[in-house]
Amino acid sequence: MARQDRAIRTRRLFLEAAAEVFNECGYDAASISAILDRTELTRGALYFHFTSKEELARGVLAEAVTSEGLVPQTLKLQEWVDVGLLLAYRLPREPMLSASIRLAVDPKARGLFGTRWPDWIVLGGDMIAEARARGEVHAHVDPVATSRLFVGAWTGVQLVSGSLEESPELVDEIASLLELVLPSIAVPGILARLDTSSGRAERLLAASRAAAEGRGEDPGPRSADGPPKGR
Amino acid sequence: MARQDRAIRTRRLFLEAAAEVFNECGYDAASISAILDRTELTRGALYFHFTSKEELARGVLAEAVTSEGLVPQTLKLQEWVDVGLLLAYRLPREPMLSASIRLAVDPKARGLFGTRWPDWIVLGGDMIAEARARGEVHAHVDPVATSRLFVGAWTGVQLVSGSLEESPELVDEIASLLELVLPSIAVPGILARLDTSSGRAERLLAASRAAAEGRGEDPGPRSADGPPKGR
Repeated sequence: MARQDRAIRTRRLFLEAAAEVFNECGYDAASISAILDRTELTRGALYFHFTSKEELARGVLAEAVTSEGLVPQTLKLQEWVDVGLLLAYRLPREPMLSASIRLAVDPKARGLFGTRWPDWIVLGGDMIAEARARGEVHAHVDPVATSRLFVGAWTGVQLVSGSLEESPELVDEIASLLELVLPSIAVPGILARLDTSSGRAERLLAASRAAAEGRGEDPGPRSADGPPKGR
Repeated sequence: MARQDRAIRTRRLFLEAAAEVFNECGYDAASISAILDRTELTRGALYFHFTSKEELARGVLAEAVTSEGLVPQTLKLQEWVDVGLLLAYRLPREPMLSASIRLAVDPKARGLFGTRWPDWIVLGGDMIAEARARGEVHAHVDPVATSRLFVGAWTGVQLVSGSLEESPELVDEIASLLELVLPSIAVPGILARLDTSSGRAERLLAASRAAAEGRGEDPGPRSADGPPKGR
């Protein structure tokens, strides 16, 4: 592995360890030592990449707006649906994503680093605006306001469903949330053609990871502990 | 004022002070001294009502499921709408309500005290079930699942909109959220008759408080620092 590739992987290992510790202890109680203990790397390597816990938190948040698994669809509104489903599928499986929400809902961490919510609102708002321009969305829908409501609703559904004693699968809940809001957004002919099934995200992600491996690209965090054969 | 009334008011003053401190510092950093400093009451009075910070937090959470302002409506689904609007109007004005959300989203406090989300889900689910039995709600709507999604969505919209640099008014956001989800819930003839306007909550609350004062009841937290004349 080239030195640069290794540096990228090492940096990612530290971010993943930091995300796990933030998830378990919260930002305030997380310590550099606890993060280091999760890796088998040296303190020197850590400080080469990150000089403080703050930098680790910023690094985790920087990775949190991700469209992995998203592929162009005939309907632009389907891509917006896919973003919501993909994140719901990935969040319980990827500590970096759950840590970014944990940091966002923690008022102290939020005061220090802000959140990625505004970025998600812009990303979703652009997709809804494009879908509206193509006639897939009711003319009266305000793309930014709708995106803002959905980012909020998505976040809260994750929080509340995750806190219940019998937690439903997040991707099932988000599929139901989409089914609840889409009739107010999509024009009838388009609504019937949208796929909001909760198995969709897993299929999209598997296809995109297989395609990335075929192209010899890094297929993402899932293979961080073992690069694909043939490298 | 009778001794018992005074004790109830004193207890409430401590809860309101605790709610303010939880809102500002979070549960962990909140101290009994900081809470006491907000009141002009003695430490002895505090310990008469609450022996620990934990008990204060439980007391705040116990007050958090409230239907003040809610009055029976011709349409049961209107009452469900009213619960969402009333809370959205009251939350920015009543520290007890915002503190209960702050305690619910704080993983440490949540671990200690749980949340009131399950109670809200039951309350909303019962209302939707009743509305469905009356034919106001589509037959395929699952009352508990819909209530759970809405409690999540409500909470997240509050969190995200409150964190933005230019925060929209919460009651306007929740009115928009209701408009987004109601077409999937209400049958068409009922949908047109529902009032989701953001000014509705203020009117309902003012009417219910005026009625309570007229009856000589305690009209709620707004008048805690000055009981109505004529007592």
